[in-house]
Amino acid sequence: MKLPLGYRYASLYAGIRKVKKDDLAIIVPDSPAKAAAVFTQNVVQASPVRLARQNLKTSRGTVSAILVNAGNANCATRTGDRVALASCRALAHQLKTDPHFILPASTGVIGVELDSKLLTDPLPQLVEKLSTDRFDDVAQAIMTTDTRVKVASEEIALQGGTVRVAGMTKGSGMIHPNMATTLGFVMTDAALSATHLRQMLLAANERSYNSLTVDGDTSTNDMVTLLANGAARVRPNEKERKVVGEVISWVMETLAEQIAADGEGARKLIVVRALGFRTVEDARKVARSVANSPLVKTAIAGSDPNWGRILCAAGYSGASFDPADIDIYLQRILVCQKGLAADFDEAGLKRKLDEPEVRIRVVRNGKSKGEARFFTCDLTEGYIQINGSYRT
Amino acid sequence: MKLPLGYRYASLYAGIRKVKKDDLAIIVPDSPAKAAAVFTQNVVQASPVRLARQNLKTSRGTVSAILVNAGNANCATRTGDRVALASCRALAHQLKTDPHFILPASTGVIGVELDSKLLTDPLPQLVEKLSTDRFDDVAQAIMTTDTRVKVASEEIALQGGTVRVAGMTKGSGMIHPNMATTLGFVMTDAALSATHLRQMLLAANERSYNSLTVDGDTSTNDMVTLLANGAARVRPNEKERKVVGEVISWVMETLAEQIAADGEGARKLIVVRALGFRTVEDARKVARSVANSPLVKTAIAGSDPNWGRILCAAGYSGASFDPADIDIYLQRILVCQKGLAADFDEAGLKRKLDEPEVRIRVVRNGKSKGEARFFTCDLTEGYIQINGSYRT
Repeated sequence: MKLPLGYRYASLYAGIRKVKKDDLAIIVPDSPAKAAAVFTQNVVQASPVRLARQNLKTSRGTVSAILVNAGNANCATRTGDRVALASCRALAHQLKTDPHFILPASTGVIGVELDSKLLTDPLPQLVEKLSTDRFDDVAQAIMTTDTRVKVASEEIALQGGTVRVAGMTKGSGMIHPNMATTLGFVMTDAALSATHLRQMLLAANERSYNSLTVDGDTSTNDMVTLLANGAARVRPNEKERKVVGEVISWVMETLAEQIAADGEGARKLIVVRALGFRTVEDARKVARSVANSPLVKTAIAGSDPNWGRILCAAGYSGASFDPADIDIYLQRILVCQKGLAADFDEAGLKRKLDEPEVRIRVVRNGKSKGEARFFTCDLTEGYIQINGSYRT
Repeated sequence: MKLPLGYRYASLYAGIRKVKKDDLAIIVPDSPAKAAAVFTQNVVQASPVRLARQNLKTSRGTVSAILVNAGNANCATRTGDRVALASCRALAHQLKTDPHFILPASTGVIGVELDSKLLTDPLPQLVEKLSTDRFDDVAQAIMTTDTRVKVASEEIALQGGTVRVAGMTKGSGMIHPNMATTLGFVMTDAALSATHLRQMLLAANERSYNSLTVDGDTSTNDMVTLLANGAARVRPNEKERKVVGEVISWVMETLAEQIAADGEGARKLIVVRALGFRTVEDARKVARSVANSPLVKTAIAGSDPNWGRILCAAGYSGASFDPADIDIYLQRILVCQKGLAADFDEAGLKRKLDEPEVRIRVVRNGKSKGEARFFTCDLTEGYIQINGSYRT
């Protein structure tokens, strides 16, 4: 991992979740970082989401620390707002900074009261543990039903020197655009203004977290944050900002892909591309509809090249097209040509569908260029087992 | 069953599906009936759907027979249009009627060529078998992954005499509003114009088939047809038409409920009601979003009173409300009050959630009256097993 300079990390087990596994963590830039964030669009929003949005506004995009817990979403509880506020104040006190500079985040079960002492009492110990090499520990601590740690990083040499981008994320159920039970924390050591960070985050988010669906559910706690602390002492110029933006997007797309691949119960990552549609919006509708179809996702689980379900999901997506213009590829093999069955080796394709990554391509013939990509996963018995008894 | 007068039914095994079980059927009114129908809104539409729509238009809502097969959707195939046309012509020839008076319908796998001889060769034998008491046989013949026959009937005494309404339906996966892999055939012996039938069908459809979701997928073959042959020799007046409309709606709601209860892999029928929202549209968004949430449906499968997921699904429905105004009831027990956890006996409620019918009620406090109801089912491992290998 090429970690950005000037960030320290710490995590510990605070007793918030039942299993003894770190559940409280902080990410602390050496000096206050510039920040941007996107939040869930669910009208039901957890206390930390509302407080984080407010703090970012008050601080004009300045962040001294991210404070995150797993095991309890701090949502739809009587004391949620007070708990979130108390935890930010306590951490600000420890770090000798302004409470508005703390970005709170929570993930876990909804509707269960969270004892604020569980968050505040361990803070001195947590600050004590801060270290530049505990990035992975924090990535571990934010996991809930995730089976794998999700991290990505990249570096890029600019004229003034090298800058780095690293990110961690969590989430495997309740994943859907705008947004998901997802937390994403992306850090860079480039020097960037809050305004530029916001532009970069929105563009990258569209191509990553907003192009991701596991089960169509959108949670109350989602947020993705981008921090820039300037520790590399490199301030990208306008041209270089495009490159940095691309790198940030690449990191976030990699994180989104990892979430889909680790979807609850998933055995396969599915990448759906829609090409040649009249508009990008139409292409997104098609890619999203196919990625979100339980019938497509169960067919892929069973390595069944049932392209009729893909055509059908495209058909009810709301995009405008003539079925006679549609070709469909599964694992780069043409299975549907001009809306009709193509000749293909079914046994051979079934074997290819056993691979851990399945590519679905829906192509509209013609001169239009609207295209889009969506990440999802197959739908298996595992999803049901995980979600039938998560709470109890 | 109180079957309407003046209809005959027949079915046989034509070799369209692999399993030896009747797969071809006809419903024939003694004299041409007035008819209305609603069709899938998927842009990918099977040949029989397109032909049925066209025939109804040409015949100005007159139907001499419904011709239906299971085992093959006759969709996305090279010869589909010709096959549908040939089958209508052949049956019209047998019945000595106009081919435009035949309403074709198909259900089954998409993208597999259907040999028209399988449809046309058995027609003389099928017509030979026509009988007033083979209603249930036809209801059996149209089943695909259905585990139960779905029928409903009702009679009502009007001033001029008694009229009867009976319906049969099929479908358990790919069920979603506007529409589903559903076929519905509803017959009455009242005398009604095509225009009145259409009004009654649209109103009843909104409360039944369009308030139904199993997996969010919308198929290429769906249609619901309403026939009126006038055999009871009763022509309802304007006031009585309202009553007949209500009876038709009741029959269709009962059919829709049966589809949800028999959802692929389902063990429980779920009825979601949203009450007190600003508009009916908002209430429909909430009811639909909750009914369509895999996380809610898996929680119910596991008898887990996880109301947080219900609140969350309401939150991303697009309806406008303040979470602090929301109460949620599960099996008539208050589990969430004003957006927060209510005190309830969790063990007792879990037992109640083991029942075959689960009622979810999302109430917005205030003076608004927008309400809606949706039918769905729990999401179990069975759904995955059925759909992971349906085609092969």
